[in-house]
Amino acid sequence: MPIVRIDVTGPKSPEYKRALLSGARRAVVSSLGVGDERVTVRVIETPAECVDAPPCRTERFTVVEVLLYEGRTEELKRGLVKALREEFAADPGIEECEVSVFVNDASPLDLDVLPGLASSD
Amino acid sequence: MPIVRIDVTGPKSPEYKRALLSGARRAVVSSLGVGDERVTVRVIETPAECVDAPPCRTERFTVVEVLLYEGRTEELKRGLVKALREEFAADPGIEECEVSVFVNDASPLDLDVLPGLASSD
Amino acid sequence: MPIVRIDVTGPKSPEYKRALLSGARRAVVSSLGVGDERVTVRVIETPAECVDAPPCRTERFTVVEVLLYEGRTEELKRGLVKALREEFAADPGIEECEVSVFVNDASPLDLDVLPGLASSD
Repeated sequence: MPIVRIDVTGPKSPEYKRALLSGARRAVVSSLGVGDERVTVRVIETPAECVDAPPCRTERFTVVEVLLYEGRTEELKRGLVKALREEFAADPGIEECEVSVFVNDASPLDLDVLPGLASSD
Repeated sequence: MPIVRIDVTGPKSPEYKRALLSGARRAVVSSLGVGDERVTVRVIETPAECVDAPPCRTERFTVVEVLLYEGRTEELKRGLVKALREEFAADPGIEECEVSVFVNDASPLDLDVLPGLASSD
Repeated sequence: MPIVRIDVTGPKSPEYKRALLSGARRAVVSSLGVGDERVTVRVIETPAECVDAPPCRTERFTVVEVLLYEGRTEELKRGLVKALREEFAADPGIEECEVSVFVNDASPLDLDVLPGLASSD
């Protein structure tokens, strides 16, 4: 059920965005041990003219929000942050300090997600 | 004061988005009993190339975040989720399992909303 | 580390958006006393056809989310909300009641932000 939102400064190439999408998926699946079929990721591209970052940031500054059920241990959360930074450092090549992560815990009452049923063929 | 954000995979037709906007409004008003003038809804359309969903999901996968003041009972929250799924199933025709809902509780200190004053003519 | 997201109804002019970006930065820096280099702001413009606001709202209705580390006092938070409303009232000229603010507290475990290292020349 993790729902991942990645905020970046646009425009970014299709390859760059694909790397973020697949890297985030791998990071979530491997670090939290959730099934691949339970993860969705989206990249929100905001035009550079609509982003105001300080000079110590680059246009690769990335904010990742992972919305998930509460109850993950501190160790698992740290592993998730580390995995996201490692994936994005490898591809599309983002400095680890440019990746900020917000883990948004929700109770099962407040986050209501049902399994998908579509056929994958 | 509920502030609703609906994330969908684009492109979607204007009719599809209008159905989401009005359905979400009706669901919030009827299930929580708040005044119509206190609800705002927005649909954020993310291009398909920027969304990575598993094969068990369709392009109608929808994430609804409802930001509101804390203190709703469990029963009211369940009613809200149910109402959103029923509205979207009726129009624009989204399978109930494709609608995920995140109820984001905030204290009156952390969520500061003032009544609108514009004339409605 | 405050990460600010400003949701507005588009289209808005570049001047309007620049005023939001710089006003939000000033408000956060002055009211919370954080260093300028720690603040990022983005404006998300949603087309009018994708926003459903009640008639008592104008097209300047603005939702500001400030994601930051938990622990700010009530007084600091109230000062932040006030500063945001005053900045936006001055420029680009938004009625104070049209500015809603959500302060999103996160623990240091759940919000992991590293200092930026880019040269500012």
